Parts: sequence; C-alpha cells; structure tokens
Amino acid sequence: MMRTHGAGTLRSSDAGTTVTLAGWVARRRDHGGVAFLDLRDASGIAQVVVRDELLDSSGAHDLRNEYCVTVTGEVAPRPEGNANADLPTGEIEVTATSLDVLSTAAPLPFPIDDRVNVGEETRLRYRYLDLRRSGPGAALRLRSKVNRVARETLLDRDFVELETPTLTRSTPEGARDFLVPARLRPGSWYALPQSPQLFKQLLMVSGMERYFQIARCYRDEDFRADRQPEFTQLDVEMSFVDQDDIIELTETLLRNIWALIGVDVPTPFPRLTYAEAMDRYGSDKPDLRFGLELVELTSYFAETPFRVFQADYVGAVVMPGGGSQPRRTFDAWQEFAKQRGHRGLAYVTVAEDGTLGGPVAKNLSESEREGLVAAVGAKPGDCVFFAAGARSQAQALLGATRLEVARRGELIVEGDWKFCWVVDAPLFEPADKAVAAGDVAVGAGAWTAVHHAFTSPKPEFYDTFDTDPGSATAYAYDVVCNGNEIGGGSIRIHRRDIQERVFAVMGLTEEEARTKFGFLLDAFDFGPPPHGGIAFGWDRICMLLSGEESIREVIAFPKSGGGFDPLTEAPAPITAAQRKEAGVDAKPDVKGEKQAEKPAGQSAS
Amino acid sequence: MMRTHGAGTLRSSDAGTTVTLAGWVARRRDHGGVAFLDLRDASGIAQVVVRDELLDSSGAHDLRNEYCVTVTGEVAPRPEGNANADLPTGEIEVTATSLDVLSTAAPLPFPIDDRVNVGEETRLRYRYLDLRRSGPGAALRLRSKVNRVARETLLDRDFVELETPTLTRSTPEGARDFLVPARLRPGSWYALPQSPQLFKQLLMVSGMERYFQIARCYRDEDFRADRQPEFTQLDVEMSFVDQDDIIELTETLLRNIWALIGVDVPTPFPRLTYAEAMDRYGSDKPDLRFGLELVELTSYFAETPFRVFQADYVGAVVMPGGGSQPRRTFDAWQEFAKQRGHRGLAYVTVAEDGTLGGPVAKNLSESEREGLVAAVGAKPGDCVFFAAGARSQAQALLGATRLEVARRGELIVEGDWKFCWVVDAPLFEPADKAVAAGDVAVGAGAWTAVHHAFTSPKPEFYDTFDTDPGSATAYAYDVVCNGNEIGGGSIRIHRRDIQERVFAVMGLTEEEARTKFGFLLDAFDFGPPPHGGIAFGWDRICMLLSGEESIREVIAFPKSGGGFDPLTEAPAPITAAQRKEAGVDAKPDVKGEKQAEKPAGQSAS
Repeated sequence: MMRTHGAGTLRSSDAGTTVTLAGWVARRRDHGGVAFLDLRDASGIAQVVVRDELLDSSGAHDLRNEYCVTVTGEVAPRPEGNANADLPTGEIEVTATSLDVLSTAAPLPFPIDDRVNVGEETRLRYRYLDLRRSGPGAALRLRSKVNRVARETLLDRDFVELETPTLTRSTPEGARDFLVPARLRPGSWYALPQSPQLFKQLLMVSGMERYFQIARCYRDEDFRADRQPEFTQLDVEMSFVDQDDIIELTETLLRNIWALIGVDVPTPFPRLTYAEAMDRYGSDKPDLRFGLELVELTSYFAETPFRVFQADYVGAVVMPGGGSQPRRTFDAWQEFAKQRGHRGLAYVTVAEDGTLGGPVAKNLSESEREGLVAAVGAKPGDCVFFAAGARSQAQALLGATRLEVARRGELIVEGDWKFCWVVDAPLFEPADKAVAAGDVAVGAGAWTAVHHAFTSPKPEFYDTFDTDPGSATAYAYDVVCNGNEIGGGSIRIHRRDIQERVFAVMGLTEEEARTKFGFLLDAFDFGPPPHGGIAFGWDRICMLLSGEESIREVIAFPKSGGGFDPLTEAPAPITAAQRKEAGVDAKPDVKGEKQAEKPAGQSAS
Repeated sequence: MMRTHGAGTLRSSDAGTTVTLAGWVARRRDHGGVAFLDLRDASGIAQVVVRDELLDSSGAHDLRNEYCVTVTGEVAPRPEGNANADLPTGEIEVTATSLDVLSTAAPLPFPIDDRVNVGEETRLRYRYLDLRRSGPGAALRLRSKVNRVARETLLDRDFVELETPTLTRSTPEGARDFLVPARLRPGSWYALPQSPQLFKQLLMVSGMERYFQIARCYRDEDFRADRQPEFTQLDVEMSFVDQDDIIELTETLLRNIWALIGVDVPTPFPRLTYAEAMDRYGSDKPDLRFGLELVELTSYFAETPFRVFQADYVGAVVMPGGGSQPRRTFDAWQEFAKQRGHRGLAYVTVAEDGTLGGPVAKNLSESEREGLVAAVGAKPGDCVFFAAGARSQAQALLGATRLEVARRGELIVEGDWKFCWVVDAPLFEPADKAVAAGDVAVGAGAWTAVHHAFTSPKPEFYDTFDTDPGSATAYAYDVVCNGNEIGGGSIRIHRRDIQERVFAVMGLTEEEARTKFGFLLDAFDFGPPPHGGIAFGWDRICMLLSGEESIREVIAFPKSGGGFDPLTEAPAPITAAQRKEAGVDAKPDVKGEKQAEKPAGQSAS
C-alpha cells in the first residue's frame, strides 16, 4: 500500500508517528511560506502542512484542488488555538517531509463541495467527480452496508443465495421487456427479466426451500418520475411457510437494516387490510407518521339534498387550521384535484365561532350543517375537504389530499419512521384500470392480477375467484415505510389447476398459458411445495435510509431521463456489421427451435 | 412454518419429541401393514413410519416418490439392529400420527438419484427435479457459502460493494457484445457488459478506493466447450496499491474460500514469470500438481544433423515408463499433436538397457544419442517427447503433452491443490494471433493487448512499449489453480498519455479512442489515483470447489449449447408489435444524441 494510515483515522494519540498518506487535495491555503492542505481519502480528511521549499523541490508548486498525492510526515498536535472541533482529525496536523504528486487535475467542472448545487446532467457526466463529494459517496457506502446486513440476516437463517439468469424468455409481467437478439438462434430473442419471479418459484419446486438474491431487474418503461431502466430488488422466497412467516422475516430484516442508521424500529408492524388502508388513509401505502384519517360520510349524507354528495361514497379529511386559507389557495386545491383526474375538491371551512363557510355549505341541509363538525372531528378554524363518487376514486383523492395537507402543515416529524403492512388486497382488478395506469395486461381478459398472476387467492376464495373475480382477496402483503411501498409479496399458487383458472380469468387461452408459462405449470405436476416470498425495492430502501429524494442518489451510475448515461453516452448507434452479426433482422428458424426442445433422454449407470 | 424440525437434524437425543416435518417422499417401502418413507427436505433425510390405516385415512394410499407431504409424529429409536450408520438420522425414525399430502407428483422423467446418469438436455429441461438430487443441489448451496466468505473477507477490509450498470455502451473487449435496442432512443442500442472494467476504474477515479462486486458479465461467443453467454466474476479494484497488495489480498481470499471444503492452502503462492511458466511447463496456467518439467535442448542440439531439430527452440518432456507403449499408442500421440496444429510429436524411447529407439533416434548424432538420457533426466523404460520450432508454439505442444502424460500416467493425486501466480506477461501480442484464437481485436493495429487495453506496462517499459511493443511486459498477474486460470488482473494505466499511446499501438486512431473510451481518458484528467485489481472466474472457482467438470453444475439455470434454455425455451421469437415498439428497425437519431450530451450546467446555492 502506498500509505500507512487513512487520513481520517489520525488522532492526537498518533502524535510523533511518521505516517504516509495518499489521497486528494481537497483545499489549499497558503500562509507565511507554508501551504496548508486538506488531504482527503476514503477515511476522511487530515491537515497537511507543507513548506514552500518542499513544494518546490517536489515539483508541486502549482498543487491544486483534486491533485492526487502521497505525503510522508510526522503527526503533530496543532498549535494552541488552531484545533478544529468540527473535524475528527481536528486536533492534529501532519508536517510533510516528502510529497509526491501521483497525478494532476485539470480545472474542475464543479467544486467538490456538497454545498454547491450542480445540475443533474453535469453530475452524471462527471459522476467520478460527483462521487468524491461526501454526500453522494456516503450514499453508496451505506448501500454496501445495507447489503451486508440483509445478507447476514438471511444467511444466518439458512437462506441460500442463488443467481438466476438475466438472458431469459419474454413473459410480460406488467411492463415492457428489454430484448436481446440471439445471434446463435437467428430470429429469436432473449428478454431481460422484470423480476426473477418464475425462477424463484422453480427453485422452490427444486427443494432449495429458502432463496434470496439481490437481483438486477429490467423494465422498459417510459422514464417518468424516478424510474430507472435497470433497478435492484432483494428477492426472497421460502417453502412451507404462510404469510406470518414472511412478515416476521421481513420485520427482522428491516429492523436490522434500520439499525444501521441508529433507528430502533418497533416490531411487529401494524397490519391493515387493503380495505382498511383505503378507508382510513385513502391509499394502499399509507403514511402513518401523522393522523388526519379519512372520515366516511356516506350514511351521514344518505338523505342529502346536495346532488354531488348523492354518491356511492362520500368521505372527508380535515385540514387543521385550514379554514383561514385565502381564496386563491382554495383555487389551487381545485387544480390539485383536477390534475389527479377529478372535477374538483369540495370543502367547507369552520370559522372560529363554528359557522360553516365555503361554496358547499349552503347546499347542505341544516341538520347536515349542524352535525358536520362533530361528524368529522373538526375544530374551529379547520377546513374539511370532501370527495364523493365511486369509493376507490374518491378515497384516492382524499388520500392525496391528506398527504398534501400534512406536507403544507409540516405535520411530518423529521426522523420519524412508521412502518406498516397492507394485506388482503384484491386478487384481480379490471384490466382497463391497469392499462390506464400504464401497465400491460398479461391476458386479453376483463381482469388482471393486482399483485401478479402467480399470487394465490386466499383459500376461502378457491372455489369462487373465477366466477366472482371482483370479490376475491389475495394472499398478498405489502410493507410500507412512511408512505412508500418498500416491499411486496404473496403466497404463491402451487396448484396447477388454480394457476390455470387464474390465467383463464386473465383471458389467457389454454394455448397462450401453455406457450408462456407451460414450464411452470409442468413443474407443478411434480410435488411442488407450498411457497411464498417477497421482493424489496432495494434502491428505494437505500434512498430512504440515505435521506435522499431520488433513487438515482443510491445508484453508482444511474441513467438520466430517457435512459441515457451522460458519462458513457450509452445507448449508442451500432455498426451495420454488429447489426448483421447479431442477427437482428433474421426471421425465426422454427425448425431449429423444435430440435433443441427434444429431451436427450436418460440412461441408467 | 409448516414444520417444527428439519428432517435431517433429528438425532437419538430427540427421541420422545413430537415433531412435524415437511418435505418430499424420497423412497417408500411397504412391509407388514406399514409404509417406511424416506422423507427428504433441505436439511437431509429421516425415516418416517406410517401405518396403512393412517395412509388410507389421509387419502395417501397411493403416496409415491416426490409427493410433497407434512408428517407429524414422535421421534423414536429405530428397533434394535435397524440403525443405518450411513445416515446422520440413522438411529431414529418418526412414527407418524398424521400425514397430509401437500401436492402429488406425476411419474418422473428420471429418478431423483445421483447414481442415475441423465442426459444434460433432460436435466436442464427438468432442472427443478435435477436440483432435488443431492449432488446438483449441494453445488449451489456451496456456491452461496463461497459468496459469503468472499464478501466477508472483503468487507472486513473496508471494501465497498457497488453495483455497476448492465445496460451500457458497446466497447469491444475481445468478444462480441450482446445488444439491447433502446426504445426511447430509436436506432441506439445498449450493450450488456463483458466486464465492469471501465466502471470500476471510474469508481477508483471517484475515490471509492476499494470496490468489489459479484458481477454478471456477458459475452456473445460461440458456445464451444464450457462457455456460458452470461457468467459471473468476483470483480475487485483498489487504489494506491501495487501488485503485491492485490496478490496478498487474493491469497487471503482463496485461503478463506478453500477452507470451506476443509483445505488449508499454504500462502504465499509460488510466483512464476510468464516466460518461466512457458519454459518450464509450456503453459501460462501451469498445473503444479506434478513435475515433468520441460527440458530445453536448443543448445544441446545446436549442431544436430537432424533437420527437424535445427530450430529456434528444441525442448522435451519425459514420459516415465512411456518407452513400452505399443506402436498404435505412439500413432495416437501423433494424432494428438496434429489436432493441436502441429506436424507430429517426435519421440525417443529408452530401453531397459539404455539404448534409444523410435524413428527419431537414428537421425541424431552419436554424441547426441549418448548424452540424451542424462540431458533430459530420463530413466530406462521412459519415453522422451520432443517439440522443435518457434519457441512459443513448440512449448505449447510440450505443455499439452505434459498434461496428457500426467493424465495417462495418473500422476495427479486426487484432492491435491496447487496454486501459483503467473506474472510479467507480455503487454502486447500480434493481433493475428489473437484473432486466430477467436478474440476480436480492439483496434486495427498489428498488436493487441494480452490482458486488456487498460493494463499498465511495467514502469521500465514506459518509454519503449510503443517503439518495441513485442518486448514490453505488463503489470499483470494471473492466479492459477491446478492448471486452471481462476483469476487475472493488472495494475491499470492511470495516465492519459500512456493510455493514449497504448491505444495507438493497438491501431486506434485518436478519433476512435475518443469515441470509444473518451470518458475514461477525460476522467484521467482529474487526479486519477494509481489503481489495480483482479477479476475471478466465479463459476470456475465454484466448479473446482464442488469437484465438478463443468461450470454448468454451479449455475442454477445454465444454458445448453447454442445458448438455449431447455426449461423456459429461451430465446424465443418476438411479436411484430414487440419488434416495432422496441425500435429495432429505427435509424439512429444523431441529433437527439447530441442534445442529451450537453451538460446542464451548474449553479451555486
């Protein structure tokens, strides 16, 4: 090693020791014939004192920020009054006796300083400089620790880490596949996996019993919001378990992970059914860091003269102190609702004397007005927002309103962590709803799976899920942290007959099911164990732990919008020769396929 | 959990305990109104005794092999004389009081029995049954342990586990890239990485200092021999190190890994220079489990009348006891040489009385004949094989002969492990040689890199490597185990000027270098640290540890020949809609590229 010590590890107890450090010049100040350098390496920063003569004799007179150097010198206490309490090494400095410039640095596109805002495209283009800043570097270092804790937790419970293929078969699971031409089978293509779902289920059939993988997954989605074309999930599957086993494992895992940032997560997490989460929070990923629960008013307004409230569902959420918002703010709330596809956001203000205001109030009956404040639990000075209509849409609007009320009211305490489970989600949803949300339906049917096609109905719906798909609930569970879905899983179907009936509900013909998923159905013929699992959004978990707002902050080389990497400039055009050789334009050779399918038989030894 | 105990964990100390087991029926024997089941789970096998009445009342009368069941019963010592010393659970049995069939099994395509040979295509098609066999399953479980030990070794030394992208830019590194069309940038393609080489170097520039990743890599090669289109390497990179640091780390890592199979690997490993390895063993990955070193006879035959030996190099390898091989065996040796591209394999036999035989002997001078036995160290009854010609080709033939002699003579002791380093390989080799070996040259020049284009010349060749490319040696090191290259690495170039000169030797124009590797060259402008690393062939290491002959045995779902997966039938034709949507047929939109390249600028906060 070109160093004896990490710069950031030096303490006053090292005084008198001769050390060799290696790292980067984070800062240079010249004063009285001496250069004071902040020398930065992976362990931290130390102050190095270099006499001008040494700089000159080392050919380092023009030493600038981000030059890479080694320095040898003696650790000494800083002179009286010069200690820096903000720095772990603030009591010492290193008096250089030799200095070597390992490499020089051109003028930087931006300073290596967390306090400087740099445009994202520039940060990514010079990601190797961005990561020298303490914040971005620390996020990746934390991620490595998260991996370690997760793996140790699982390995200590006899899990087996297994790698599944990434050159695999296209099996739509709700998003587009990335495709890879197969040169050796012209006309055929691999797909990059959206998740290892089918392989982990096959591993359960194989008797591996406890599988995990920190797995790269791929979805060719439009890069709205914070999506990356490749992302990582911690993927877990177990045999001979029920929902409680996966839940207990998850809680232990997340407890151990959050301990890394000094947070003691109480377990067990509260469990809400999907229906309860929607009724109380208007969300299937409720943020429990604050109250403001939805109040259902459907029966309260059963006889209402107000036509808008003559609906399948009426609910409300109270904004504490919201009664005094100016008119233009209420207009902004209307806009807020419209952006979410609603006609507006009805509201009533409660004056300090308890009288109701706002455009809706006068449409209510007198008894409705009288009882309202008590019915919704409002106080003088509050505002009550309403949504009415189809239950799930109205609740979703109230859920979004609830979050926005909390945000504007700064009701969320920094550093608070609230976990919960959402269980018993519907097994199916109408396919048009999924497609509207940007997903690709697996089959051509009127219904598609809410979780995925391999999720088991709860046993009490085994007989009826295909005759009444809208009523069946799934053996599915999502784990939610501060309003973020950080993991989701299910008990899987392990019976061929049930799997075939689920495919049928989703509109897959027998032949389609056989073509796309025949190998899974076949596997279920050979003593499949009951099994279930969960997948964690690893990027999102690391993002939350790092206190970041974007998963890009916890990915070493993320893509920017449109899937472009400003650093390597990927993707890029390919040559005609590459195109030809890869067989991009070949037609499938069906005969070749069939030959390779034929099993080669067995022989006893 | 649907069980209280693992079947394989039960011991006589558990007698009297009521247990619930879950697993598969590995065997059923019926005897006297009772069925004896071998119940198998991930922990092992236990014998379960089930009365016929219980089978009947459980609806399990037709219980067959590989049915998946749970059983509850009491652990009891086996009756006197019925213990099975071959089984860890052989002293007990479980007397079932209840039994549930969790799922049934159709007749199996092959028995779940390691002793039965099954064709590979069938094994892979039913991989979920193949992995129920103890050998295949154990190989994957061992691999998981290998991962754990490697990660712990590295994390304990402050390495950071970092994920690099797999949707990246095509940068030829000796093989074809797999390509992925970029739907959002029509006409542009991603490439799957052949290794994380460039990213790990950028991470060093970013100051991460110690990186590792168990990384999936991709090479679109013809599937000769034991190649897989996707494979795994343990990828390591460090800053501020020299070759000895990487060597010491590797030796610790491999020691810790081999300890998993109870092998104590002595360190340090012997180091051979490339030249020495070729001279003594005729191989750059010498198998040191046996001697049979090559003997150079170039000066011995300096004056020879035998025209074949009037060559740049003459060498020999002795086959102990080989003098008595029948004529047809010597013919087979000729064939052996011809298959390797040589004209034949000259040999001389040494009779028990010391006289020389074989067709070559009579061509030698009398003094050559007299001194030969002593010169090569042969004994009466031995055979001496010769190769003459260009040094490297002749040595390669002798190296192959040496291995074959050891194989035929059973000179390799089972369970012996011999590690070594091969260092100081040439920096460049003639490009035509690389292309003949199936590699793709990076540039159009007469020379290509032996290790890769980012490997540093040894400092003593900094000034001359481009004027005399054939003489420069590289700061490269390969670690070899029992004749297998299991890892290779190098100290990297971190100076832009040297990197540019290396590219030039390889025939890249300045513009080509800039287009393909500009981002790396740019990074070297900003204080790059000296760095180096190594990559381990993870599949091969796990294969060796498992005592297997093919890397397919340590991959959960390997591809068969031609990159085909007999289980999922990947790759498969895609639909016209998929093709259209993926933008496979689009022309590159060069303007779009340029726009995205433009940095977005910075602003101070």
